[in-house]
Amino acid sequence: MGQAFQQYLKDHRNQHLEQLKEFLKIPSISSLSEHKADVKKAAEWLQHELSLVGMENVQIFETDGHPIVYADWLHADEKPTVLIYGHYDVQPVDPIDLWETPPFEPSIRDEKIFARGASDDKGQVFMHIKAVEALFQTMGRLPVNIKLIIEGEEEIGSPHLPGFVEEYRNLLKADFLVISDTGIIEKGKPSICYGLRGLCGLQIDVKGAKTDLHSGQFGGAVQNAAHALVELLASFHDQDGKVTVEGFYDKVLPLTEEEKKAFLALNTDEEQIREELGVPELFGEKGFNFNERTWVRPTLEINGMASGFQGEGIKTVLPSEAMAKITCRLVPDQDPEEIYNLLVKHIEKHKPKGVTVSVTPFDQGAPFLTPFDHPAIQAAGRAYEKVYGVPTAFTRSGGSIPIVADFDRILGLPVVLMGFGLPNENFHAPNEHFHLENFDKGMETICHYWLDISTLSLR
Amino acid sequence: MGQAFQQYLKDHRNQHLEQLKEFLKIPSISSLSEHKADVKKAAEWLQHELSLVGMENVQIFETDGHPIVYADWLHADEKPTVLIYGHYDVQPVDPIDLWETPPFEPSIRDEKIFARGASDDKGQVFMHIKAVEALFQTMGRLPVNIKLIIEGEEEIGSPHLPGFVEEYRNLLKADFLVISDTGIIEKGKPSICYGLRGLCGLQIDVKGAKTDLHSGQFGGAVQNAAHALVELLASFHDQDGKVTVEGFYDKVLPLTEEEKKAFLALNTDEEQIREELGVPELFGEKGFNFNERTWVRPTLEINGMASGFQGEGIKTVLPSEAMAKITCRLVPDQDPEEIYNLLVKHIEKHKPKGVTVSVTPFDQGAPFLTPFDHPAIQAAGRAYEKVYGVPTAFTRSGGSIPIVADFDRILGLPVVLMGFGLPNENFHAPNEHFHLENFDKGMETICHYWLDISTLSLR
Repeated sequence: MGQAFQQYLKDHRNQHLEQLKEFLKIPSISSLSEHKADVKKAAEWLQHELSLVGMENVQIFETDGHPIVYADWLHADEKPTVLIYGHYDVQPVDPIDLWETPPFEPSIRDEKIFARGASDDKGQVFMHIKAVEALFQTMGRLPVNIKLIIEGEEEIGSPHLPGFVEEYRNLLKADFLVISDTGIIEKGKPSICYGLRGLCGLQIDVKGAKTDLHSGQFGGAVQNAAHALVELLASFHDQDGKVTVEGFYDKVLPLTEEEKKAFLALNTDEEQIREELGVPELFGEKGFNFNERTWVRPTLEINGMASGFQGEGIKTVLPSEAMAKITCRLVPDQDPEEIYNLLVKHIEKHKPKGVTVSVTPFDQGAPFLTPFDHPAIQAAGRAYEKVYGVPTAFTRSGGSIPIVADFDRILGLPVVLMGFGLPNENFHAPNEHFHLENFDKGMETICHYWLDISTLSLR
Repeated sequence: MGQAFQQYLKDHRNQHLEQLKEFLKIPSISSLSEHKADVKKAAEWLQHELSLVGMENVQIFETDGHPIVYADWLHADEKPTVLIYGHYDVQPVDPIDLWETPPFEPSIRDEKIFARGASDDKGQVFMHIKAVEALFQTMGRLPVNIKLIIEGEEEIGSPHLPGFVEEYRNLLKADFLVISDTGIIEKGKPSICYGLRGLCGLQIDVKGAKTDLHSGQFGGAVQNAAHALVELLASFHDQDGKVTVEGFYDKVLPLTEEEKKAFLALNTDEEQIREELGVPELFGEKGFNFNERTWVRPTLEINGMASGFQGEGIKTVLPSEAMAKITCRLVPDQDPEEIYNLLVKHIEKHKPKGVTVSVTPFDQGAPFLTPFDHPAIQAAGRAYEKVYGVPTAFTRSGGSIPIVADFDRILGLPVVLMGFGLPNENFHAPNEHFHLENFDKGMETICHYWLDISTLSLR
């Protein structure tokens, strides 16, 4: 049965690449108002294409910004229902003179297609559509129920997506969500990221005297705002980098033995990482390796700080103000609001003498985890392996993807991040490209995945 | 005997003020090359004036910058020899539009003379010349031997003074040095500052990874340069603000009982200081009051620090660099070089893991102290009291005056800071002025001082 869609994809490869080029030619830059019509044109191109391949209920939902494209096919009866997310908007193209070929004139060189959006994310959206086409053309139907939601504002922070998802939560009901907007760890090595860290940010402002003071005249008798801030900031960690905020680690889920094994199987070369970063040694919480420290342990990082005189040379000033920006990376099951409150409590407890301290909250985002042993995760691993011929790596990521947290929060669905990009494909930069190897293998992987999913009971 | 010079000064007040105005009219701004000729003109004005009043050996010493004016009168035989220092150059006048009357058109209003240089320092230099004149005119001689050195580069950091003093150390030999370039603590309240703090500065640069990193991707596994700096900076003080650098306080001279009493007699209102500074509480080393903390205790102050993102909002960056500028205010008998070495040793000992730390030395200046009970200090106190009719306050200052340290280092002389300015006379700012009350009383004080000194044996 697999052979049929494989053959179909092979036979139609040139035609598909020409269609992809058409899609990539539309300069759907969501951040630039002069491209508003182009963004709309890309939505309409999708609408037309989705109808052509056999999707139903194809709709363009207008928002206060750029539209959201929806389509479904729900005739697989009691089979699982998959919600697929992608985006059709792209990043700006500056600096334009660094592009070897124009960003909106797609060009294939060395088995890579070069264009803005080639990997992020038009290429990957297009693959889902062509996987659907291949299955329809070779099976006459889809093995699972599929819902597609493709937005046009991802590159500007998806301002209207959460509202839309909230409003249409019934329409978007599914057994799990597949997001194809990421990548695999390296060429020929498929991987699934099943967990992300969350975020909790704040700014601390310390205020001492009304104005900066002469360090001779007042030094020694007035609290220096920089000293106060330093004392406060130093209280957040112990000497091994462990966060000392009371209760900070209380809700942190420990790794399962299976996860530990999966991470060790990655054979991460820490010495190579150290060398690439150019640091004398890696540094972090004792008892955890690099992957654990960045993926499954929460952090509290100073992102920036400032006080007093920063110019060249010396200025004997006693600074009256000092500022630090802090973000915590959170892991399941930490709650951003709860962590924020713990931080505020810590700051109050450690408030230095002789100054006032104020705290301003910044962005928050929940951490995300689809259980490693979730059938949709394991099936995705099998689908990759079938096509790439090597075991699928399982990873988490230390970063955040805000829309994942939004979907998780609103729909409460397990999420599978099934991406096909490669780390060096210049997304957001000049000469963005997409490896055709992953274009071809990716469509096959998707088809295998739906067939595998159709054998599972997910409800 | 006193009456004679008093009467003389009274009788010639208008003439003296007109002469002072002439001196103030010369725009001798040392920092601006277009005023080079004016600076020279001021030196020549002094040369002429010094000869007129009866000083001898009047010379203009050229330097690679602006000239130094010298004069002496050495016929008081075995009486003490006083070296008097002042400067005839002035600060720039920007912002010019904030001056109520033009800076180089001296104007008397409300018994104050307004002009650039009125109090800093032409007015005070002029007073010494007129005190000499009054004594010559009424006594036919001076009660002590006097040497005058008046430089033209004080406002640009006296680059050529130390070399000159070094070269002419024999010419400048004296029993003590009087510097009239400071002030008294408040109107009607004469004071003598007999000690200054020194200085030792450095910059600490912390370097982590090659570049700033994504706090999601690497946070938790790489030392954050800001964390490392904070940890290091926090190690410099205990929670009460005491410096924890080993050996830091070893050479600090304790206050004598007489000094303690003199400071308490100032009746410093700490609550008023707190309120003026706008801080919730004053803060410093336990067991010391405000004056002690700022005058006789050394400090280690962060003057500025910077790391990572300082703009608005949030940027989830893991900074690779962090910088802090630090100066210590030193007290007798701390040695700047020795303290610098203790700081470097401390930094090496507390160097955080996972980063490199480098240290750059900045300016150093020795602390200065003329013993409180030195006869020249006590005589100055008596001279002020005789004229102002109230006891003279004895203070130290938390700041530094680099030339004092230079004179001290090269000539090894006791220094008396006999100033007549008031704290609010806008030196270095628009509408600089000088209270004529202190102009009149100051000249009398100087005459009394020389008479008193002539009764002492200082060798």
